[in-house]
Order: sequence, then structure tokens, then C-alpha cells
Amino acid sequence: MNTFGDNIKLCVFGQSHAECIGVTIDGLPSGTAVDEEYVANIMALRAPGNSPLATKRKEPDKVEFLSGVVDGKTVGTSVCAIIRNSDSHSSDYSSIFKKPRPSHADFPAYIRYGENFDLRGGGQFSGRLTAPICIAGAIALSNLEKMGISVSCHIKSVGEVQDVPFSPTDDENELAKKLNCMAFPVIDEKAGDKMVETIVKASAELDSVGGVIECKITGLPVGVGEPMFGGIENVISRMMFGIPAVKGIEFGAGFEGSKMRGSQFNDSYYYDKDVNVRTKTNNAGGICGGMATGMPVIFRVAIKPTPSIAKAQETVDLATGKNTVIEIKGRHDPCIASRASVVVRAAAAFAIFDLLQS
Amino acid sequence: MNTFGDNIKLCVFGQSHAECIGVTIDGLPSGTAVDEEYVANIMALRAPGNSPLATKRKEPDKVEFLSGVVDGKTVGTSVCAIIRNSDSHSSDYSSIFKKPRPSHADFPAYIRYGENFDLRGGGQFSGRLTAPICIAGAIALSNLEKMGISVSCHIKSVGEVQDVPFSPTDDENELAKKLNCMAFPVIDEKAGDKMVETIVKASAELDSVGGVIECKITGLPVGVGEPMFGGIENVISRMMFGIPAVKGIEFGAGFEGSKMRGSQFNDSYYYDKDVNVRTKTNNAGGICGGMATGMPVIFRVAIKPTPSIAKAQETVDLATGKNTVIEIKGRHDPCIASRASVVVRAAAAFAIFDLLQS
Amino acid sequence: MNTFGDNIKLCVFGQSHAECIGVTIDGLPSGTAVDEEYVANIMALRAPGNSPLATKRKEPDKVEFLSGVVDGKTVGTSVCAIIRNSDSHSSDYSSIFKKPRPSHADFPAYIRYGENFDLRGGGQFSGRLTAPICIAGAIALSNLEKMGISVSCHIKSVGEVQDVPFSPTDDENELAKKLNCMAFPVIDEKAGDKMVETIVKASAELDSVGGVIECKITGLPVGVGEPMFGGIENVISRMMFGIPAVKGIEFGAGFEGSKMRGSQFNDSYYYDKDVNVRTKTNNAGGICGGMATGMPVIFRVAIKPTPSIAKAQETVDLATGKNTVIEIKGRHDPCIASRASVVVRAAAAFAIFDLLQS
Amino acid sequence: MNTFGDNIKLCVFGQSHAECIGVTIDGLPSGTAVDEEYVANIMALRAPGNSPLATKRKEPDKVEFLSGVVDGKTVGTSVCAIIRNSDSHSSDYSSIFKKPRPSHADFPAYIRYGENFDLRGGGQFSGRLTAPICIAGAIALSNLEKMGISVSCHIKSVGEVQDVPFSPTDDENELAKKLNCMAFPVIDEKAGDKMVETIVKASAELDSVGGVIECKITGLPVGVGEPMFGGIENVISRMMFGIPAVKGIEFGAGFEGSKMRGSQFNDSYYYDKDVNVRTKTNNAGGICGGMATGMPVIFRVAIKPTPSIAKAQETVDLATGKNTVIEIKGRHDPCIASRASVVVRAAAAFAIFDLLQS
Repeated sequence: MNTFGDNIKLCVFGQSHAECIGVTIDGLPSGTAVDEEYVANIMALRAPGNSPLATKRKEPDKVEFLSGVVDGKTVGTSVCAIIRNSDSHSSDYSSIFKKPRPSHADFPAYIRYGENFDLRGGGQFSGRLTAPICIAGAIALSNLEKMGISVSCHIKSVGEVQDVPFSPTDDENELAKKLNCMAFPVIDEKAGDKMVETIVKASAELDSVGGVIECKITGLPVGVGEPMFGGIENVISRMMFGIPAVKGIEFGAGFEGSKMRGSQFNDSYYYDKDVNVRTKTNNAGGICGGMATGMPVIFRVAIKPTPSIAKAQETVDLATGKNTVIEIKGRHDPCIASRASVVVRAAAAFAIFDLLQS
Repeated sequence: MNTFGDNIKLCVFGQSHAECIGVTIDGLPSGTAVDEEYVANIMALRAPGNSPLATKRKEPDKVEFLSGVVDGKTVGTSVCAIIRNSDSHSSDYSSIFKKPRPSHADFPAYIRYGENFDLRGGGQFSGRLTAPICIAGAIALSNLEKMGISVSCHIKSVGEVQDVPFSPTDDENELAKKLNCMAFPVIDEKAGDKMVETIVKASAELDSVGGVIECKITGLPVGVGEPMFGGIENVISRMMFGIPAVKGIEFGAGFEGSKMRGSQFNDSYYYDKDVNVRTKTNNAGGICGGMATGMPVIFRVAIKPTPSIAKAQETVDLATGKNTVIEIKGRHDPCIASRASVVVRAAAAFAIFDLLQS
Repeated sequence: MNTFGDNIKLCVFGQSHAECIGVTIDGLPSGTAVDEEYVANIMALRAPGNSPLATKRKEPDKVEFLSGVVDGKTVGTSVCAIIRNSDSHSSDYSSIFKKPRPSHADFPAYIRYGENFDLRGGGQFSGRLTAPICIAGAIALSNLEKMGISVSCHIKSVGEVQDVPFSPTDDENELAKKLNCMAFPVIDEKAGDKMVETIVKASAELDSVGGVIECKITGLPVGVGEPMFGGIENVISRMMFGIPAVKGIEFGAGFEGSKMRGSQFNDSYYYDKDVNVRTKTNNAGGICGGMATGMPVIFRVAIKPTPSIAKAQETVDLATGKNTVIEIKGRHDPCIASRASVVVRAAAAFAIFDLLQS
Repeated sequence: MNTFGDNIKLCVFGQSHAECIGVTIDGLPSGTAVDEEYVANIMALRAPGNSPLATKRKEPDKVEFLSGVVDGKTVGTSVCAIIRNSDSHSSDYSSIFKKPRPSHADFPAYIRYGENFDLRGGGQFSGRLTAPICIAGAIALSNLEKMGISVSCHIKSVGEVQDVPFSPTDDENELAKKLNCMAFPVIDEKAGDKMVETIVKASAELDSVGGVIECKITGLPVGVGEPMFGGIENVISRMMFGIPAVKGIEFGAGFEGSKMRGSQFNDSYYYDKDVNVRTKTNNAGGICGGMATGMPVIFRVAIKPTPSIAKAQETVDLATGKNTVIEIKGRHDPCIASRASVVVRAAAAFAIFDLLQS
């Protein structure tokens, strides 16, 4: 189940300490543009050192296309793209194996896979595995753009600090373009500064902090979305929970909407001056019956705090059957919201691009 | 895409005004128990008149098994079960067709399907189509019970009124049993009374109100859940958004968790007195890396207010290209939270039962 | 795995002694014509008594559409259609259970399903389950016709008696139309007479006989067919082996072609007088690289002799662990080739119709 | 549709002139052995120069495992394996593009993909793409062996020359072991010599010749095989037609069986001296109702003559719209039967291994 897609199937492979990680994409229509520079830009936004907190920049992941692309276009066969792991030598991870890190996949993975599991660096549960999704997503993004479909994200919150939300009814094309180039995408720069402060503070206290990513998709033709289990919400949510650390998703007014009255929630239709059908509000988040209404699709995903923290944590020692304490070494991102924003954007784009092939 | 499931595939069919609605289920292991009384009980809980507000009780949907079941057990072929529609004669729905109801699927469905659409009663977008999901879910529920897996739901909120939440760490088996028999399942009866008041008030004001359903699954073996796109969160969320009116889902601490620090969010492991590995908190909602941790799986879904309200609403007239106003006739449920709770429960059970066949 | 199709999914349900058998079809484009009379005609050709040997005609299976069709067109939801079983009362089949009939599924089904198996009338392994495939196939056939695609079959052989083969290079549209109305479709009537003689003789000797069905598809656009595992041959063969009694399939020159030299087998291209690209021969059976070449697609399927014969046969008694002898009672079709021809035609049509939605 | 498998999904990627070809395999149970030496041996048997006719041996394809395997075992993530193409520089293939080679995929591929097609060396339609299938198949073969399941092939015929057939009822384990090591596997060496003569003669006359591969699978547990469209015949045939040049498949008595009477075809059951249920004949090829009967599974596939021949051939010039003649340069295998035999074996093994995970 490393495979996603109903029409275009991506299959993610690799572990954080294998020779490489990568993705095969089966079913891209022949002639689909694959802009390697565009892909590289997305990878740069996702790069490990790409945060306002990083003391030194890391090189972004370099993508190699092994098959399926000739002269910048797909040729009807599966695309395979890889990223080599610079650091695939085997450190001693066996202690982690026996002392599962809280909020990591270590414990259920150990029970499920036993010794047959690549525990080095989190194996296949590492956030690093979102990089291959970004490759597929970048291809989708660049092709959606040509179709007039824009997908953009901003960091809606870090801890208790809130950014200004997306307008639910305006397209905000200029804003989208601006956000799409930002390493730490926020609408209100002052909120952004406070978010950075919050992250710095958490980091200084050997801790981490969570956040919320808001995503907006404009330009989707009315009616896109398959029935029942194939609607926009179904496919986007299935995809989003493939991103480690995502613990919730809501569309439009979402959980706030559940507190409303119908007369407040319902989005009234009207003809605008160009005789287009629009809604005055957009509590539906651009989706009714799983299908696009023509208004912006808006959703938010909850990102849990980075589980790897430097503080000592209680856990169990599976070897001895006793309670114990661990300290997680190494440098860890105290807040993955900024990097998650580009992953959410790319992943949403792939899900939508797949849906559009129906 | 009326089809769901990776190992056991259900296919929902029917429209609210077709001769019947129903479901085929392909891949149930031969010998799976099909307890028709159990199924009938679930249908009774979902029955249209089954709410504290209903003036008169409606008969619950009667389920007929057409194939695949002999002497209460599956025989290795697809199960087909139907519910006849008592009222399948064609009223005049053409006005709706041209004056789309706010927050209904009418408008995108019209654009997508044009005249080739069964607009009577909402066609395939009617909440009535959740009944077939409940048939499949009831079969799953009764079989999960035998495996020691319990799935239960309560109405977490209606409008601003909150019920007591599930305990994230205790199994609460007695509570689960109690809730599973209640037509309006709440933990705190006083909260339940206030919810009913809220609904009655909304109804009196020709309005509706939304709510949140909380679901708890206990007894799942540690490690259940496929990698990446096949995790518990992925399959449950894909299923949940197949229920009309669901606009959000969160697992464990969910959106609240995104405000936390890692040291607060991370669930510390410990050995309990029976030397079982447990966590002190359960912000992960029983799921790490898509796999069950052995702690209760807990999630909440946001239910939007019933879109059909008696109040006049603004919309467009697609025939004339002008703005207009509609009033929706007929009796409508002012809050579907109580009926949705049994649907969420059944749907979650099916998704889990499917996952367990991997 | 009663489910077939990559874009349009059919799910067959029912057993020969359940209340009914039927099919759900998910993914038919909204507005697809469903001509109930056309469907009835196909069912009539498949009717049990529809052979030159039948002493009395049986009523054809009556198809009821339960959902998904309004005014002769699909409405975007799953289509469900059923055929009621007139004779669903339970005879005593337990003896069969313990004394497996040679060349039936009884023995492996008993080992696989144990007691959880509907052994009455062969359960889900009955040839009766081809009727639901014919419903789906009939819908496909009538829609393919509108697209200029013709699918027709004849009985290529019964025992050693051979009919004239289809011309591999000519469309033979008039012949196709004629064959499509025949209950015992043969090109050469004299061969047909000899086939009937062969069948009558086998029947008189309490025996049965096999045959070969040849199918021809014209009008397929050049290039239809997905890569590698999704080619025309892959999807047609997967479908054909879903028909009980099919034991082989070959395309174009097939097994004879394996004896040829390349210079003899290769189909030379040429421009005909209308400057269309055609081939002089058609040993490829209209398919290269899994894709349609524009020449007629031709394939043949081998049908084994009806396994139910009146002659005494040796078998085992699973209850006693001893060898024994059985005699199969009841009237059985001494050669299913004529009825299989309409099933092959309908099944091929569905596979092609599904492929065309890619 | 470069993807195959219901439980374990392989996705083939690459073109003959891309940087590499390869395969991702998603869903292999964690801990599945991956014996790289075993894989290398299979690749050696498939090596281009591995035939009695080759003047000089070519190095076999070298397989690199990029992910999913640690210490010779899978770790629960997708396996990715590649073979680098030694010769990926671009020759001038544009003439082929416009003058389609008879019996190649050139013409339908051109119509389908237009300019967006990697025509170099046949692109994704090259027989070279069977190498990745062999990687997956080799993993399956070595694991099936451990389960007591043997898969072996021999060259049943080349042109008109016939090898002795497999015994349909005996396991012939010693024979299987012997064949599995042979580059030109035949049962009767004299027949093998005549086959080689036939091939040499065809080659000398600038021609090619076809053949038939017979495959035998022993040790399959009784009852293996899913219903209807998921039976052994369905999955094996879907796989086989993914191998270029395969034009037919038959199980057991196959097309010959269609000429038989039921009393002759039906396989009588009996208890052998160890009180195992066996059949006296095996015209069913070890499969009834899609399920294994416990007798050897036997099938044959028809391989068309190599389409690339040195003789001049008639074709069309798509650039000028005129008929023309082409001569295909380069060294081509005059009979691919020997290399196809290992591909058929590996491909069958993968299909069976996938089926066994149900």
C-alpha cells in the first residue's frame, strides 16, 4: 500500500537508509510535461535546511529520472525517479528498536514486522519518504498550472500563533504565486515572525511544536469528483494521511461549521456580473456531494509536533520488559510545518491530477 | 467509485427514488456470519424516525439478502442485499433541477451529469444511500465483536453543546455497550437533553444544526494498518467522506494537538501491571505510522447542519439566468447527528474489517 | 474476485439456488443507453432451451433493473440488475458434496470452502452465473454498435466438425449481423447440420462434446489497448477464463502461428485505395503490442465438453475414503457451445467497452 | 497498466534506450527472502546471448536492488530493482517511426502516442522489458520453492518440431530440476537438436521461427484460486499476454480437449495408495472452477516468430503515404522460444505467488 491513485498510480519506494528513495508513476498520459527545473524547485522548498531556523543550508534532494521521460515529456511508459541517500551507512539503531520512541512508528512497526524491518532512521516511516511524493506532485503541479488550476498553501498556525486565513471566496491569484515561492509561506508576515519565535523558543527548550497547513485550490471545473468514495474529499484525505504527522483534515468551515445553523452554513448561490454561478459564502470549501462547486477548494490539515525531541522521555525497554527513559540525539526540525506545507501542496496536486483523468 | 475496499469490496447502488437501494459485497471470507437480526437492529438505529424529536416512528428499512448467504453464513460468493424504496413514484423535481438547493449536490451534479441524472430526492447524493453502507457495516460489526474488537460512537456535540469525551486511554467497554443501543447516544444525559433542546429550537426556527460524532475502536491488535496510503487513518477517512455531510475528521488530539509542544503531545510508553505496553496519554488516537498502537483508536467527524431547511434561501434560476429564492418543502431532519452516529460506527467497522483481511 | 473491470467495474453475485443472481455495474458514464429490449434479446439467445436440440423451449431469463437506470439511460450511479431464480428450493445436494463430480468445481470448492459453500446446483460455479455477465455485456454491445464497433461470434467447431473460419481481413458486416441473430450461429449451414448431428449422437450415448467459439471485433480505433498488462489480449483473456468451461484462448493465427516462419507470419502493411493503412494478412489477430492495429480483432476460445454426463463415472466418496461411482441425474446440455457463443460475445464486448473508457 | 497483481503489485518501468529498466514491487510480505544469486541465475538464463546459436555470449543483465531489501530480506517497504542499459545513446530511429515494421507495435504505438513515444529500440514494447518481470518472478520462484511449489518450463515446439510433453499426472520433480538449469530446456534431447537445426536454417534464410512453451506447476494446495475473474487461469493468462510475442494460451487438454467427448475429457477421481485424492487423467490441467485440484497445473503458450527478420518486407511510408519496402538491420534472435521459456516460468511464478497471498 505504498501505491496511490485510481488513474495514475504512484508507488513510493525506499527507506531513509537504503541506497535511494524514489517513486514510479504509472499511467501519466503520454506527452505529459516533466519540467525537471520545476521539480528541483519544489525539492528545494522541501529541503531539510530550508527553514528560517536553519543555521546552514543543506543541499536540496537531487532528483534523477531513470525512465519514462524523453526530452521533457513522458513517453507512455512508467516514470521512475530516484533520490540517492547521501548517508546510507548503517549506524547502530538497535537501541531504538528495543526502546521505542514515543509518537514514532517504532513500537507498532516492531510488533508488525519484527526483525524484518529497516529501523535505521525510521525506515519507511521516515518523513524523508515524502520527497518521492513531492516529485510526483511537482509534475502534477506544473501540469495543473497549464490547465489554469492553482494549488497553494500557507502555514495557518504554529502552536497558538495564527496566520490570516485564505479568503474562501476570492481566487487570490497573486497571493498564491507569492506563497508558492516562500520557504516559510505565511500571508501575514508579522504572524510569520511570531511563529518563528515560537519555534525558536520550543527548540531552545529541547522541545518541538505543531501547526496547521491550509491549502487552496482554484480553477477546478465544476463537477469534478467521482461519486461516494471517489469524491474530492475522499481522495485528498486518503492522500494527506500518507504524510507522516498529519492527524486531521477539514474542508471549508470544517469543525467550526458543525457548530453552525443551516441558515448560516448554507452557501447561497448568485449570478455575478459575468453571469457566473457563485456562492456568497464558501463553508462547503468548494465541494458539494464530493464534486467541485467552482468555488475555491479549501482544506486544512493538522500537523502534530515533531516527535523527535531532545528532552528525556519515558518509554519501555522491550528487551528487559522494564520501564526506562530515552534521549533522542541528533538535530531534528523543531517544527515541520514549513516543510510540510510544500508536501501538502504537492500531494494535493497529485490527488487532483489523478482525479482529473477519470 | 461507488466501490470501497481493498480486500473486501462493497459497491453501493440505488437512488432514493429507484426501485431499491442496496449493496454488493465481494470478498467476504466464506463462512462469515451474517446475522440478519443484528443487521435489522443497526437499520432500526438509523431509521428516519429514530430521534427524540420525531413525532411518529417510521418503520426501519427492511433488508433483503438476495444472494451469498445460506443459513446465516456467507458461501464464498458476493453478497447482495437490498432495501426497497416505498416511495419510488416520480414527483415533480424539475424545479429543484433548475434552482439548485444551497449546500446540496444539485448544482455540481447538474453541471456534471446534465439531464442524465436522477434528481428525484437527491438521487445518489441522498443521505439514504448510507443505509447500504450500514448493511455492510453491520456484518462487519458483528464479526469484529467476535474478534474482541468494539466500535462505538457518541454524539460529541450538537451546535455548541458538548458531551463528555471518550476516555482516550480506558477501554470503557460497559459504556460502549450502552451507547451501541441508544438512538441518541450520549455519555452525559444532561448534555443530551441540552442537545435535544438545541435541535428543537433550531427546528422551530425553520433551521437546522450540525454536530460532531466521536468514534472509539478498542481491541485492535498492535500493528494493524498497511504502509503509507493504506494506514488506518487513510482508509477510515476515505470511507468517512463517503457519508454526505461529513466535512472533517481528526484522530486523537487532532487539531488541538497541532497547538501542543512535542513533550506534551508525545504518548509515553510504560508497562502496566500485566506487563502490557501502554501509553500514558493517547494523543495519537491509537495510531502511529498508520498502524494500531494497541491503545483505543479515537476519531471525530464534523457533520455539517442539514442543508434542507424550511427558511427561504437565495439561489439562482439556471433556466432564466437570474437570481431567485427557494423554499424547501417537506419534513427534514433538523439535525442528522443522531442518525449519523450509527452510520459512522458501521462505516468505520467496515473499513477496519476490510483492513484486517490484508 | 467476482469483480471485473479497470474503469467500469462489474460485480457478479448470486448462486444458482439463491433467490436471484445479478450484477452491479459501477462506473458506466452517465447517459449510457440501457436498452432493455436489447438486453432481453441477448438473454433469449442464452436461454437454456435455446438450441436445435431442445425438445421444448424454456422461457429466457427475465432481467429486472433495480437501480441506476431512468428512462433508458444511466444516471451516474451504479446499475443493479437481477434475474430471479425460479427454482431456489433446496434439493438434497449433500451426496454430490461428498462424491465430487469429475471436471466440476466440487472437489476444490469443498476443500477451499468446506461446509461454507452453496453446493446446490454448483453454487457460484454454475454456468448460470454467466447470465449476469451477459446483462453487462448486452449494455456494452448496444453502445459499441453506436460507436461503429461490431462484436460477433460463431461456433468454429463442435468435436471434430469445423465451420468455415472468419475472414481475418474483411469486415464481413452482413455476416456479423446474421450471426448475431442466430441461436446456433455458424457460417456454413452444412457444417452446422453436422455439428447438430454430432451433438445428438453424443447425447444419445449419454455423453457430451466440446467445441470452439470464434469471435471477431471490427471497428476498433487503431491504438486502443493499454500497455503491458492492460492490452487487449490481457483483458479479454482475463474475462474469458471467467466463463466456466473455457480452457484456452488464441488470437489471430495463435497456436498455428507458432509453427510459422516470421516471413510468413508478419502482416505486411499497405495503403488501400482509400489510403487507409491495412495489412495483407492478419496473423496478429488485429493486435500488436496489446493495441488494436485497425484490422479485425479475432480470437478463439476452447470450450471443454459439458462435464455433467449421464454415463456412470468413477469418483471418490469423501465421507468413506473409498473409490465409488456416480451417475449424474437430470437434463444437461450435451454441448454448451451454442449458448457459450453469446456469452463469449457479451463478455468480450464488456471487456472492450471497459478498455475504451481508459 | 504497467502494473500487475492483486495483493503484490509489480510496476515495470523503463524503455530499451532509457538509462535503465526496472521494477517496483509493493506488498511483498516483510521478511520475504530476496536471494540475489538466485535472481542473477534467472537473469543469466534470460541473457540475450544465451542460446545454442549465439556466436559469443553476452553478459547477463546485472540487477541492482535500490530499496526494500536489507540482509537478503524484504523490510516491508516497496522493493525497487533496476538494470542499467549499457547502450542508451540515441541512434537514428526516425525512419522506423515512419515505416512501421510488420508485426511490431510501431504502427499502433505511433497512432496512439504520436511523437510522444520513445521509438528507440521499440521503447516500452521491447522484449527487453521482460527482464524486470524476471526479477520479480525470480523472487517468487525462490520463495515458492521453499513452500514446496515447483514451476518449470520446456520448449514444447519450435516450428513443426515437437518435444515430448510433460506428464499430466506425475510430478516429475527430477525433470523439473534439470530443466530449470537448462538454457535450451527440452525433455527429449534429440528433439532439441532438431529444434536448433530448424532455428539455424531459418536464420540462414534471413528468417525467424515461432514455438510453444509448456509450463508445469506442482505442489499448489488444493483450492488455491479466487472466484470467477480471479481464478488461476485468469491471472496466469493476464500475465502471459504481458510478454510480447505470446499469442495464445491453453490449460490442460486445451484446444485438443474441445474435440473430446465428456466421458473422455472428464478426469475421474480416485484414492491413491496414500489415500490422496487424485485424478486418472488431467485434461483440466490441474484447475477446476479456477481453483487448483491438487494435480499438476499445466499450460502452454504460443510464441509467434520473432518479427524482426533480415528479409525485405513490405510496409507503408507514413511520411509519403506510399507503399514501400524495409530491411531490418542488426542481429536479431531468430527464435525467442528459449529465452521466452524462462520468462514464462518467472512470470507464472509471480502470478501464483500473488494469488497465494489472497
